[in-house]
Amino acid sequence: MARAEWSPRERIVYSAAQLIRMQGVNATGVREVVERADAPRGSLQHYFPGGKQQLVREAIDWAGRFAADAVHGFVRLLDPPTPSGLFAAMADQWRTEFRTSGYGRGCPVLAATADTAAGSDALRQAASDAFRTWQRPVREALVSMAVPAPRADRLAVLMISALEGAIVMARAHRDIAPLDTVVAELAPLLDGAQSA
Amino acid sequence: MARAEWSPRERIVYSAAQLIRMQGVNATGVREVVERADAPRGSLQHYFPGGKQQLVREAIDWAGRFAADAVHGFVRLLDPPTPSGLFAAMADQWRTEFRTSGYGRGCPVLAATADTAAGSDALRQAASDAFRTWQRPVREALVSMAVPAPRADRLAVLMISALEGAIVMARAHRDIAPLDTVVAELAPLLDGAQSA
Repeated sequence: MARAEWSPRERIVYSAAQLIRMQGVNATGVREVVERADAPRGSLQHYFPGGKQQLVREAIDWAGRFAADAVHGFVRLLDPPTPSGLFAAMADQWRTEFRTSGYGRGCPVLAATADTAAGSDALRQAASDAFRTWQRPVREALVSMAVPAPRADRLAVLMISALEGAIVMARAHRDIAPLDTVVAELAPLLDGAQSA
Repeated sequence: MARAEWSPRERIVYSAAQLIRMQGVNATGVREVVERADAPRGSLQHYFPGGKQQLVREAIDWAGRFAADAVHGFVRLLDPPTPSGLFAAMADQWRTEFRTSGYGRGCPVLAATADTAAGSDALRQAASDAFRTWQRPVREALVSMAVPAPRADRLAVLMISALEGAIVMARAHRDIAPLDTVVAELAPLLDGAQSA
């Protein structure tokens, strides 16, 4: 749920992201978002004069920042900090969510890309930016763990790709096994990228 | 385009899959599908008495079979047959599509999962089945390449996860680089799984 201390504007963006995670962009109506956010009617026009497109764009931006902040948090808690430990922490966030809240919600950036990449260049660009926002702290964390910079770029792409695909398969199967699998299989590859 | 020699029923299922690839399930209307399939009005009710849900389910089934058939085709052409060569061929299909047709179309099974996993257990189950239909020939090919069976199961999940995520990132960035990256990074891991 959106936090009570958040402004109506923040609650609206958060609620849009949550609905997009569940049902994609096209099924998510602005009225439903405003109701879910417990925001006054008319808030949408007030805060988002660009309408649904602006709202969805901000929800995608929010999701990119949320994912990046989560990576920063994982890195602080890793002891010892290893590439495989970081990837396991990224996947654990999803294992925990699926175990405790079910499989109803996936990644909003993936859902937005699937629904809008062909139809809206502005939303496609927002998704692209969100993936880069997420990738940046992953890359930086790998570099801090002695992975050479060009390799860190590539491994960040691999980690996010494998995680996104495993999230989708986990939702389809209602089973966290795909997440367990990609974490176990990539661990040696990720840790092997650390220079001596 | 749907092939002229196909039956109206086949053209409708194919057209539904193509529209889902572009815009997801919720934006895809049955009238648009029937028009695109160049099928007579009334075909939908005739062939798909279960309505849009039946049509989408059949489009997801079709996509799973299409992906599995493609894997069989790749395996026949690989010389020598290697796990990394198979994964490169699976990714090449997408690189070719993106290069020649642009980034408008993604994977229909992923799009269907993102849009419907929370709202329709029948469609979620269809997506689950499609992923397993696709995974089976990948696993069998790996086993035929001397990858031990339990490992082949896991690597098939990793390959499909990484490919699905890279397809989404490629569409978001309008750039095939994520596909190149996952192919290059996974090659040693995949070929290293072959027993001597």
